[in-house]
Amino acid sequence: MSTVQSIGWSPACDALRILDQRELPHACVERDLRTVDEVCDAIRTLAVRGAPAIGAAGAMGLAAAMTPRADEARDAWTARLRDSAARIRAARPTAVNLPWAVDRVLAAVAAADTDGAASAATLAAALRDAADAILVEDRAMCRAIGEHGVALLRDGARVLTHCNAGALATCGIGTALAPVYVAHERGQRVAVWADETRPLLQGSRLTAWELAQAGVPVTVIADGMAAALLRTGTIDAVLVGADRIAANGDAANKIGTYALALAARAHGVPFYVLAPSSTVDVATPDGARIPIEERDPDEVRAPMGRAAAPAGVAVWNPAFDVTPAHLITGIVTESGVVHPPYDFSTLGAPRSALTPSGERAERRAPSAERHGAQS
Amino acid sequence: MSTVQSIGWSPACDALRILDQRELPHACVERDLRTVDEVCDAIRTLAVRGAPAIGAAGAMGLAAAMTPRADEARDAWTARLRDSAARIRAARPTAVNLPWAVDRVLAAVAAADTDGAASAATLAAALRDAADAILVEDRAMCRAIGEHGVALLRDGARVLTHCNAGALATCGIGTALAPVYVAHERGQRVAVWADETRPLLQGSRLTAWELAQAGVPVTVIADGMAAALLRTGTIDAVLVGADRIAANGDAANKIGTYALALAARAHGVPFYVLAPSSTVDVATPDGARIPIEERDPDEVRAPMGRAAAPAGVAVWNPAFDVTPAHLITGIVTESGVVHPPYDFSTLGAPRSALTPSGERAERRAPSAERHGAQS
Repeated sequence: MSTVQSIGWSPACDALRILDQRELPHACVERDLRTVDEVCDAIRTLAVRGAPAIGAAGAMGLAAAMTPRADEARDAWTARLRDSAARIRAARPTAVNLPWAVDRVLAAVAAADTDGAASAATLAAALRDAADAILVEDRAMCRAIGEHGVALLRDGARVLTHCNAGALATCGIGTALAPVYVAHERGQRVAVWADETRPLLQGSRLTAWELAQAGVPVTVIADGMAAALLRTGTIDAVLVGADRIAANGDAANKIGTYALALAARAHGVPFYVLAPSSTVDVATPDGARIPIEERDPDEVRAPMGRAAAPAGVAVWNPAFDVTPAHLITGIVTESGVVHPPYDFSTLGAPRSALTPSGERAERRAPSAERHGAQS
Repeated sequence: MSTVQSIGWSPACDALRILDQRELPHACVERDLRTVDEVCDAIRTLAVRGAPAIGAAGAMGLAAAMTPRADEARDAWTARLRDSAARIRAARPTAVNLPWAVDRVLAAVAAADTDGAASAATLAAALRDAADAILVEDRAMCRAIGEHGVALLRDGARVLTHCNAGALATCGIGTALAPVYVAHERGQRVAVWADETRPLLQGSRLTAWELAQAGVPVTVIADGMAAALLRTGTIDAVLVGADRIAANGDAANKIGTYALALAARAHGVPFYVLAPSSTVDVATPDGARIPIEERDPDEVRAPMGRAAAPAGVAVWNPAFDVTPAHLITGIVTESGVVHPPYDFSTLGAPRSALTPSGERAERRAPSAERHGAQS
């Protein structure tokens, strides 16, 4: 498989290694992140981005930063862990995967501290193992989403996507793009149209780049062209990722997704959201409760850093919007494809109820069965 | 009135003077155009743009270029006129105003040649007078559209617009923005949200600039944010221009307009098209027959000239899309506001049937009455 690798460990496993997405497609720059500041900065500035990837990067970055210092006592280490985890957890507000991943590795540390007196080295090792498990599971999750999703694509399928929910947004072959990569691997013909995705142009900078790297035909359009494209009948399916899915199926994703969902519905084109189950936030009943990050106005004022608008002009720059569940044909997780009416609210607390790769989670809630039609 | 002036004559009336919109909002550069090459280049490269403005610029530029040369014989002049008119007429394909304006000044030249032996100087004077009449009428047309359209805006109205259909797109106070300027003049509160309008960013570069010059509050958004904005209930009306309106009311306008019309409809927000009657092309029965210009892929690949996408990536770059008549709440011309079902087909040949400033055209078709409810 020729997809790119967005995050991993440095060779000595003492740093989170990322492909700096701010530099793409012009240069492939890898960076090793060793401190909480470096990790938070990379997440905030979108050097690493995509809900699954920032979850894994948050956990792995925390593990790297929590390498015990010389003579660091257990209590000093645990105090530093609390502070570091809180800072990374809050680096970006919308994707639920980031707090999910941080909380999961914190739980692993707590579980490893059986007698309440484990050494910093023991706890750090448990932290690193838990972070590594997220990386490994994320890869499997992508693969499973791809295998469920590919059934939605005929040979010769023409897919429209928004932003980047590909390899660069995950640790594996992506979420929205996973079925595309699986189809391509199997020799099934598939072509992608990519919204450029203003303001930060993840579609033209990242999606077009990673698909071209893999040899998948890709055509870039400006976001405002998508409705006109759908009207031509060129597109068979719209596939997008998600940053948070509420219990009722409302899905937050990159700003512009909602407009795309409206246009897909107007033309009878199926609109699928593809995301790991860790993206489902059962604690959020509907999309209106999802916090939406607003970013720097200069992202809109100055495309590619070059001023277009009058200096200081007012800007509204939400990073995400919410697509209501009724516009979503289906949600594809690693457990299979579900259709409306969505009801994730009965999953109960453990998000691992929707398990990667079809494995059953020990604490799986009984009612999760409905999500596993194809798993 | 503090709106900017996009085109006019040079002081000696021997050149078309334009405000070069490629340089905005960074610099106010005026250029005097004296040759057909200069005029065509300015139209093609969007130094002057907007359907009404390129109509007037085409006619005025033709008049400037057709200043008789020393010792230029009548026959040489008329041969040069035919060639020059054909070239300017074809500089851009979608806006019907360009061939309309050129044909109109050619007809004036023919009318001035009563005995078939008028001198080049006589014919050139008739050409210039006819071109000047378009400039004057266009200003009156804008004013009339503004006065009809302002009735659609309550005090405190919040308007969303796309691309630039303002002063910079016309010889006067614009089309879509004309009601905004009239409201502002009258002390009525009005605020505008402007789609940045990729790929060429006429919204952030031009609309935001001209509204700020006039002191109208303006907020810029990326195109993909419009649907999310409409969903918040912030917007009272969407006002856009048009480059060509078919006989059935389908309207071609800047790419992205159709997506906006879908989103406005989804949220019950009225969507108005404001354009001079010269934009109505009764010879085109519906939107499917409107030729859509496709432009250089680099406009999408390189926002503000800076490469975002991988070099050479495939791009689809239509400059316009068509909004079907059923999504348009009303069409505002200088003659008033009309509502669906639209039927411009019975207007007959003379486009002047929809007259500027409420004057009656001599050859007005009887059935045009229906368009003149408010004139």
